[in-house]
Amino acid sequence: MLSDLPFTLTSLKDAYATGTRPIDVIDEIFARLDAVNDPGIFIHLRDRDSLRAEAAGLGAYDPSLPLWGIPFAAKDNIDVGGIETTAGCPAYAYTPEADAFVIANLRAAGALMIGKTNLDQFATGLVGVRTPYGAPRNAVDPLIVPGGSSGGSGVIVGHGIVTFSLGTDTAGSGRVPAALNNIVGLKPTLGALSATGVVPACRTLDTISIFALTVDDAYAAFAVARGYDPADAYSKLLVHEKLTAPASDIRIGVPDAASIEFFGDQIQKEAFDRDVAALAATGARIEHIDFSPLYAVARMLYEGAWVAERYTVIQDLLTRDPDAVHPVTRQIITHAETMSAADAFRGIYRLADLKRAAEPMLAGLDMLCVPTIPTFYSVADLEADPITPNSNFGTYTNFVNLLDMCGIAVPTAARRDGRPGSVTLLAQAGQDAKVASVARGFEQACSRNMGATPHSVPNPAPLAAAASDTIELAVCGAHMAGLPLNWQLSDRGGQFLRKAQTAAQYQFYALAGGPPERPGLVRAITQPAASVALEIWSLPKSALGSFVEGIPAPLGIGSIELSDGTWVKGFVCEASGTEGATDISEIGDWRKYLGHTA
Amino acid sequence: MLSDLPFTLTSLKDAYATGTRPIDVIDEIFARLDAVNDPGIFIHLRDRDSLRAEAAGLGAYDPSLPLWGIPFAAKDNIDVGGIETTAGCPAYAYTPEADAFVIANLRAAGALMIGKTNLDQFATGLVGVRTPYGAPRNAVDPLIVPGGSSGGSGVIVGHGIVTFSLGTDTAGSGRVPAALNNIVGLKPTLGALSATGVVPACRTLDTISIFALTVDDAYAAFAVARGYDPADAYSKLLVHEKLTAPASDIRIGVPDAASIEFFGDQIQKEAFDRDVAALAATGARIEHIDFSPLYAVARMLYEGAWVAERYTVIQDLLTRDPDAVHPVTRQIITHAETMSAADAFRGIYRLADLKRAAEPMLAGLDMLCVPTIPTFYSVADLEADPITPNSNFGTYTNFVNLLDMCGIAVPTAARRDGRPGSVTLLAQAGQDAKVASVARGFEQACSRNMGATPHSVPNPAPLAAAASDTIELAVCGAHMAGLPLNWQLSDRGGQFLRKAQTAAQYQFYALAGGPPERPGLVRAITQPAASVALEIWSLPKSALGSFVEGIPAPLGIGSIELSDGTWVKGFVCEASGTEGATDISEIGDWRKYLGHTA
Repeated sequence: MLSDLPFTLTSLKDAYATGTRPIDVIDEIFARLDAVNDPGIFIHLRDRDSLRAEAAGLGAYDPSLPLWGIPFAAKDNIDVGGIETTAGCPAYAYTPEADAFVIANLRAAGALMIGKTNLDQFATGLVGVRTPYGAPRNAVDPLIVPGGSSGGSGVIVGHGIVTFSLGTDTAGSGRVPAALNNIVGLKPTLGALSATGVVPACRTLDTISIFALTVDDAYAAFAVARGYDPADAYSKLLVHEKLTAPASDIRIGVPDAASIEFFGDQIQKEAFDRDVAALAATGARIEHIDFSPLYAVARMLYEGAWVAERYTVIQDLLTRDPDAVHPVTRQIITHAETMSAADAFRGIYRLADLKRAAEPMLAGLDMLCVPTIPTFYSVADLEADPITPNSNFGTYTNFVNLLDMCGIAVPTAARRDGRPGSVTLLAQAGQDAKVASVARGFEQACSRNMGATPHSVPNPAPLAAAASDTIELAVCGAHMAGLPLNWQLSDRGGQFLRKAQTAAQYQFYALAGGPPERPGLVRAITQPAASVALEIWSLPKSALGSFVEGIPAPLGIGSIELSDGTWVKGFVCEASGTEGATDISEIGDWRKYLGHTA
Repeated sequence: MLSDLPFTLTSLKDAYATGTRPIDVIDEIFARLDAVNDPGIFIHLRDRDSLRAEAAGLGAYDPSLPLWGIPFAAKDNIDVGGIETTAGCPAYAYTPEADAFVIANLRAAGALMIGKTNLDQFATGLVGVRTPYGAPRNAVDPLIVPGGSSGGSGVIVGHGIVTFSLGTDTAGSGRVPAALNNIVGLKPTLGALSATGVVPACRTLDTISIFALTVDDAYAAFAVARGYDPADAYSKLLVHEKLTAPASDIRIGVPDAASIEFFGDQIQKEAFDRDVAALAATGARIEHIDFSPLYAVARMLYEGAWVAERYTVIQDLLTRDPDAVHPVTRQIITHAETMSAADAFRGIYRLADLKRAAEPMLAGLDMLCVPTIPTFYSVADLEADPITPNSNFGTYTNFVNLLDMCGIAVPTAARRDGRPGSVTLLAQAGQDAKVASVARGFEQACSRNMGATPHSVPNPAPLAAAASDTIELAVCGAHMAGLPLNWQLSDRGGQFLRKAQTAAQYQFYALAGGPPERPGLVRAITQPAASVALEIWSLPKSALGSFVEGIPAPLGIGSIELSDGTWVKGFVCEASGTEGATDISEIGDWRKYLGHTA
């Protein structure tokens, strides 16, 4: 039954491969929307007939299109050709002719754009209720706020009605709704997703973000959406890396006891402690660090000059029709009118200094792990005070884009009161794949349902085999640890991996010449043959060229059979080079031989 | 006679190596200063006795210190511990305890800091006369302006009194004085030279710069001065590359006829055309490009928000004592008072858009070549109009730091009216070595004296041998051109170099197995042995790792003796692998063997 199907990428692809049609999925989407009955999710939901026609137009299933028939929604500050873009403000609205760069990428891959979602006006807010269109209801608990500014996009995925949705994220708008709706929020490195066709908030700090039910789905949509866009001056040429098995010994920084902040929410603290313990159980090394420097960065976002970026977007509107702007939004943004160009540069300098101060701390870590939100706030809390809860929500999100970090909000097991758990993993710019790789592993370690659906997280799809950037190299002589030529490995980033033995198919010689004395490992032509002691080192592939350059005849790098029957690259010796050499096969170990002769 | 010695690095080192003492050089410096008799050069000239004492303290000549006993001067917006820093404004002055980071580097290498030079106040200007300390006189012609803002630093090198001097460069202050005083002006990539201990002009655009008599001397001082400084948030980790022989076919962009501007100076136009022709004669490919996008960038420097950066530096002083600021400087900088934070961000966006628009043009070029200045202005011109000539001087310099390009102003042959010729070579950030390598070649192609001295440019010192980033690899089988595995080389950037033969010391086998069929080259243990046909390919060293990974036993990469007795890395075969193989030594050529069997 399609109505029982979770709309993950894998489920839908399996369904399409076995006869389900996109038109059926469109019908099911409308059925789910009817069941949810939340008019606040979309500012513009596309007409059902036109969607059915577009779905039918996809023709026969084409698995070569990575998002064939996959439904998604887009925040209403991202252009979809022919549909009004409002940015949450009717007086600002315009109808673009063209799709945003990212929308065009997704549609070209076969994805179906269902509608434009509600948001905190001008993407200013983390609560989702600063909208004149009527706020959406949180997918898991209608009493708590939906989160923002990408509120509708968070809620629609939380209900499992589309596979993914686009938000935008400047201060945390792509992460806070993820935490509140029990879904994944992927916030890419700045410049990875083009901003062409997006209403800016702070143009130097904005990015499109992606909500999905699983990390794999979010990353799959990101992989399609991304790409260098010459028309966006802030688009960057970034290497697109694939997901890998996460390293087991990554160093993850978490806020220390003095700097962590839950605003009194003891249950949230317990959940975070539990999640950090689960992360440690996956093999990560947890380091407790002082977050004060990051909070100092965070404060610059609204207290500093960057609010003037928001002002540039609506200055004309404020002049023309100030009442068209939501009163809270207006109060926040017009603060920029008091700031001079000199203030802006002073802010830029201070940010540079704060970044530099945070660098040593961040350099010692692979990533950070923070609670995505420090606590929960209800719709009633925001009615009582529209500012403070919003500010508090940004505790662990506001510094991120100012430092150009990338991150993923990952749902964890529910808190003991049933509210969704969520942590965000954060790393330096460009490490989107590394963060996603760790996040997908951690996601498997957390028991939870996806969003507000009754479905638990599926097993992840197998990873594509990744090319390693190091090579294993067997050494049997002066390159072994502590011996005279070992520096030729260690200077090039070589790392000791393990000891090993060759298959019993070799002759081992102490070659003539030196110093340094060198052995020669020759695959036996005659019997008796011996097994020889090896060390296996890893060396960056990029360093092998200069390493080989220093190897004299009769030695070279060939293939060596190990005692377990596998083969490894390593030092071999041409048989011709054993003239005048001493056969030390019987000793079979260069260190023993050196001790023997000493 | 020391009085006849040009104070280039090589001359002084030769003198020191043959008995001249730094104390003698100090005395000669004061003799030269007396002869020049220009009280406007220094704001603070160090006391002769203290300099003699410091020179004596250097002890015996130490050629391991790259600047041992080399005299230099520093612009008076760069801190020298214990000496007042004025930035050209007595009311701003303070006495730092510590040397600026760059000064400390130079002194640690043995250099002698002679004094602090005059400048356009707060480094705001390109003329050198906006100073309350009495302007220095141009070294080659006292009627023309000295240039600025690093005026004193340009003039002191122009006279050949010190080997090099430090300026700073935001809008062209490290290049314009070079053009006006017939010397070299090296303006590094932003962040290469630490700004710790430097009075900022526009902190996001400033760099220390270096004046010297030759490109080699400027680069040598740069190499010592540079280095990552964690205390300066704008300091960058950059690869320090050595000078190389310039490539012969570099693509150099010059302004096209429609966009080149000399403000009516026909002689300057002739000189530039002549210099471009000389550059073409060195093998460069000249491309004429439309400079309008670069002029649009340039206009942002003073018309846009960046002047607010200067304002942040002196805002307190302007409030406290506005008359302490030079009236022209005050007029320029207080323009910032009219600009809002929103204006600042609008300027930042516009710059990003202009950069992006210029990228396709710049991406197709290795560097740009521009007239350093479009024309000359006299001291009298500046008295008549203190603004316009200054603005015109910046025609070819103002856009450079906004685009984060690096460059070197190189003196060329004198114009037909005797005034100094100068062009500036410009390249993208980080290509300082590439620009200097081309500049030193071009410098040799231009006949001129150094500065105002009677000495012509010496032959450059030989270059240090550079480590190649490719490795030569001999192949004898399926990796040869046109054969089945050749793609493993060509896909990795491999290039065919030449055919060769091994020494007559090898046996050559067609190995069992395949496809593809592979040969095995084994250095002979028994006679008869043969010479075998090879192809020598070059492969990027960084690619050797993945290449070796694909080589199966019994093959490997070892050393092969060639028929001329030299050795090269290449494919060798373990003797054990020849079991079941066919000895084809007599054929001695894999292609012939393949033809043989076909």
